[in-house]
Amino acid sequence: MFRTHNNGELSLKNVNEKVKLSGWVQTVRDKGFVIWVDLRDRYGITQLVFDESRSSEKLMEEARTLGREFVIQVHGTVIERESKNPKNPTGEIEILVENLKVLNQAELPPFTIEDETDGGEELRMKYRYLDIRRNPVKNKLIFRHKMAQEIRRYLSDQDFIEVETPVLIKSTPEGARDFVVPSRMNPGQFYALPQSPQTFKQLLMVGGLDKYFQIVKCFRDEDLRADRQPEFTQIDCEMAFVEQEDIMQVFEGLTAHLLKTVTGKEFGSFPRMTFDEAMRKYGNDKPDIRFGMEFVELSDLVKGKDFKIFDEAELVVGINVEGAADYTRKQIDELIDWVKRPQIGATGMIWIKYQADSKLTSSVNKFYSEEDLSTIAERFGAQPGDLMLLMSGAATKVRTQLSALRMELGNRLGLRKPDEFAPLWVVDFPLLEWDEETGRYHAMHHPFTSPKTEDIPLMETDPGKVRANAYDLVLNGNEIGGGSIRIFDKELQSKMFDLLGFTPEAAEAQFGFLMNAFKYGAPPHGGLAFGLDRLVAILDGNEVIRDYIAFPKNNSGRDVMIDAPAPIADEQLDELNLKITE
Amino acid sequence: MFRTHNNGELSLKNVNEKVKLSGWVQTVRDKGFVIWVDLRDRYGITQLVFDESRSSEKLMEEARTLGREFVIQVHGTVIERESKNPKNPTGEIEILVENLKVLNQAELPPFTIEDETDGGEELRMKYRYLDIRRNPVKNKLIFRHKMAQEIRRYLSDQDFIEVETPVLIKSTPEGARDFVVPSRMNPGQFYALPQSPQTFKQLLMVGGLDKYFQIVKCFRDEDLRADRQPEFTQIDCEMAFVEQEDIMQVFEGLTAHLLKTVTGKEFGSFPRMTFDEAMRKYGNDKPDIRFGMEFVELSDLVKGKDFKIFDEAELVVGINVEGAADYTRKQIDELIDWVKRPQIGATGMIWIKYQADSKLTSSVNKFYSEEDLSTIAERFGAQPGDLMLLMSGAATKVRTQLSALRMELGNRLGLRKPDEFAPLWVVDFPLLEWDEETGRYHAMHHPFTSPKTEDIPLMETDPGKVRANAYDLVLNGNEIGGGSIRIFDKELQSKMFDLLGFTPEAAEAQFGFLMNAFKYGAPPHGGLAFGLDRLVAILDGNEVIRDYIAFPKNNSGRDVMIDAPAPIADEQLDELNLKITE
Repeated sequence: MFRTHNNGELSLKNVNEKVKLSGWVQTVRDKGFVIWVDLRDRYGITQLVFDESRSSEKLMEEARTLGREFVIQVHGTVIERESKNPKNPTGEIEILVENLKVLNQAELPPFTIEDETDGGEELRMKYRYLDIRRNPVKNKLIFRHKMAQEIRRYLSDQDFIEVETPVLIKSTPEGARDFVVPSRMNPGQFYALPQSPQTFKQLLMVGGLDKYFQIVKCFRDEDLRADRQPEFTQIDCEMAFVEQEDIMQVFEGLTAHLLKTVTGKEFGSFPRMTFDEAMRKYGNDKPDIRFGMEFVELSDLVKGKDFKIFDEAELVVGINVEGAADYTRKQIDELIDWVKRPQIGATGMIWIKYQADSKLTSSVNKFYSEEDLSTIAERFGAQPGDLMLLMSGAATKVRTQLSALRMELGNRLGLRKPDEFAPLWVVDFPLLEWDEETGRYHAMHHPFTSPKTEDIPLMETDPGKVRANAYDLVLNGNEIGGGSIRIFDKELQSKMFDLLGFTPEAAEAQFGFLMNAFKYGAPPHGGLAFGLDRLVAILDGNEVIRDYIAFPKNNSGRDVMIDAPAPIADEQLDELNLKITE
Repeated sequence: MFRTHNNGELSLKNVNEKVKLSGWVQTVRDKGFVIWVDLRDRYGITQLVFDESRSSEKLMEEARTLGREFVIQVHGTVIERESKNPKNPTGEIEILVENLKVLNQAELPPFTIEDETDGGEELRMKYRYLDIRRNPVKNKLIFRHKMAQEIRRYLSDQDFIEVETPVLIKSTPEGARDFVVPSRMNPGQFYALPQSPQTFKQLLMVGGLDKYFQIVKCFRDEDLRADRQPEFTQIDCEMAFVEQEDIMQVFEGLTAHLLKTVTGKEFGSFPRMTFDEAMRKYGNDKPDIRFGMEFVELSDLVKGKDFKIFDEAELVVGINVEGAADYTRKQIDELIDWVKRPQIGATGMIWIKYQADSKLTSSVNKFYSEEDLSTIAERFGAQPGDLMLLMSGAATKVRTQLSALRMELGNRLGLRKPDEFAPLWVVDFPLLEWDEETGRYHAMHHPFTSPKTEDIPLMETDPGKVRANAYDLVLNGNEIGGGSIRIFDKELQSKMFDLLGFTPEAAEAQFGFLMNAFKYGAPPHGGLAFGLDRLVAILDGNEVIRDYIAFPKNNSGRDVMIDAPAPIADEQLDELNLKITE
């Protein structure tokens, strides 16, 4: 036993007790006649004191050799502190040290191990094991653990069974790119790492395990955008003998439970919105509804006034920014520049100010009278003091652009409060989306998602119009996850593969085992998957998932701490029957 | 909602209730005027009844179309059964069906979905999703889930934090063969799948997360022996500021808790045995101590009697088989043949019978007088009616052979009772083992295991004699897992790498990040890993781990259900800068 207590638990109750403590040296304050050392471990900081009048010369000397991050063990007595620190749970006591042992020395760390550190991102990643000593990182990992435990407990209590599905599976070209694993025992053949346990969980439903879940690593070999990881963790779920509503109820319950765990507040029934409505009102299938600024469509009002840009646009749409009428010309120009950046790609933006004195003015005064502006303002529901921002163009494009602006303004105006939570179900997603590049339909969710029964005839006549039994859970403008009711009929599944451009042979080669399973009594089933990394980040009031991963990879998919990936030995390649090409 | 109740919950309490049930057709018994259907789901079986006098002609006709494994939904009324089945929890009621809907038809399954099936291993693996419908398989998966939940709850309650370590890591030639994953973004470079999270958990200790655990998939590209899987699951743990005793206490507590969960019984302190003692008494570092038959060494008694085989042997050692003196000559010959099989490799075996009439006889009467035999019998502690079996040869080899015989007899004599549990700690393992093939020392545990402080000087003079701070937990003759106190000192770790034949450069290339981490204040730490697959199998009274894995691979590492591994597309190979050689 290296310690009788940890560094977060001693208080006035323990005064006069003999204790043994271990940990890292956080700071040493040497006042000559007295030396204070802050001793840190996972649980907190306890102050040690060495004092000329009470400690031996030798002990004072030993204490003076200590440096930051030394690992030490001390024996001593708990005493009441003279000047107490009410901010520290152990701040009323200190340890008068009687014996000091250095368990391990430490070189000066490459950055300070403090809540606010001087280390940059790259450096902290390289020395992630030191970064983890810092409270902000450590607490995020502990928070993640607690959430994962709550999720498992909640689902287990509802009779869900966690089943481990295999990691070494089979590559399917559909979807994102697979990571593959050469098989030494089967030369020329490869396993693939799962992008999700999708087919396995469906097979578990065929197998009768009607409530399945798994917190599971998934893998995607994508060109990494910021804050995407090649390996990530999903809460993966599937249920049999259920309809969409049943699944939504269960996972609304789970999410509300987690929200209550974090906030202490009850969350009633989550609001719902169709995909179409979300796109119309927010230009986005994962709207942040913590704040308003809903889209207002204006095409009918603004056309025919000789303003060519609006006249020629498929859609004119805007948002009302409350209380922003006092934005200066410079501020507005900066916003216009912001939407014209290539990442957003707008060609321009029109503004209308509803001044505090009720006067209406705009950047298109030439074309629109104050009466025109008044009609527009009325549709916006604008009040004196508000600023209306209008964009125009092809409908889908302009909605995306305006959505980006709305989110940016939400951030700038502090409307996206990290301690406020606004869950939302988005439902009735399209089954298919047209891909210009390949000139064919892609599954919006995945090839196993079922169409709404009433839309099945449209699969023949107008596939793009078919709605799916698919749903996403959105939290604070982030997609937490989504799911669907699956096709459980062999014929319908064949038709779906056909729509997606699979030949019967290709479908058989890739999904034969699933189609085959459906012959033997597949129950109606559906499910959902949540991204755990993102969910815990958002529940903790953050959006950067990397902080919630113990050992994340950088944007090149590299672990800079262990320096992986790396070349392997020629013998390994030979055994795998592989050669590297130039 | 496809059902108001599941098929395991209705009883006399529900009589006259209108219910909706769903599930699979287990059996149809058509008596003409009445048809009974057993409806099955994960929770049980409920009997449905269609009755000429109470059901419509149409409904009777529909019921007659049902086949085995059809997925159906029924509406009906709970009624009391005339002939009750006390073996079935729902056996006192049946459902008088008012409405029947076939949700999905089913082809005749390739084997019967019964507790005792007619399907062979290979067929059931190919249709694993049908195999999972059978109670014996389903219940094993549910049992596994419950154990995993208990483990997580127990460790979390003790302040352990589950941290997910990465799956895409770096290949290390030490130990078993790695599975590797080519990196598309870093051409010519590879990730490796972890054989264990060993270095990451040690880095977490350096990072101050002093109680870590993880239930985690690990991977080994080994030539598979029976009942080994290329991917398997570990309960992986590590603690800082602990000594061997602290770790053993925690995991003895966990194991006792699981044993209590399963058996309802309290398990006190687990017995302990040194590696040397285990080898001497059982010829095995994972002895099954549910039964005795301890080894008895006889060299001093049997030598010098002109029996050349014994005279020339390094060791003569035997076991006493209680009550087996009535074995026929044929039975004994069969045992001798058994030990002479190439898998065991003994050259022969000597027997001594202590007959019921107290007479002693043996296969070496020529060399040993009845007095000699009596002295031997005394050392065995044999009683009239016992059979003593003696083997001889090189000490290590003969112990291994006799151990195999002891286990075989334990099985044959029913001494290895599946509902009896005998945990055992084996401690004081050697730090190193000599490998004849490579002519150098290998780490018995792994290169991070610390030597016992008092044995450190032997590292210079007699490395093979150095004992490690290493411990295994053995349950019923199976190694559940093991662990060690790690080296946390950079110098000692260097010395260890040196002993293992690493050049400083090779050690740096492979473990540089760990050695580097040790510079910045590594705490004393240690841990352990249990094999979850094996642990749950044994706790459930089984030894075949494959049954406790939802989708296992066969002995060629192949998933015969999804047919993986498989060739991948040429474009995939091109993207990875790889070529397959002949």
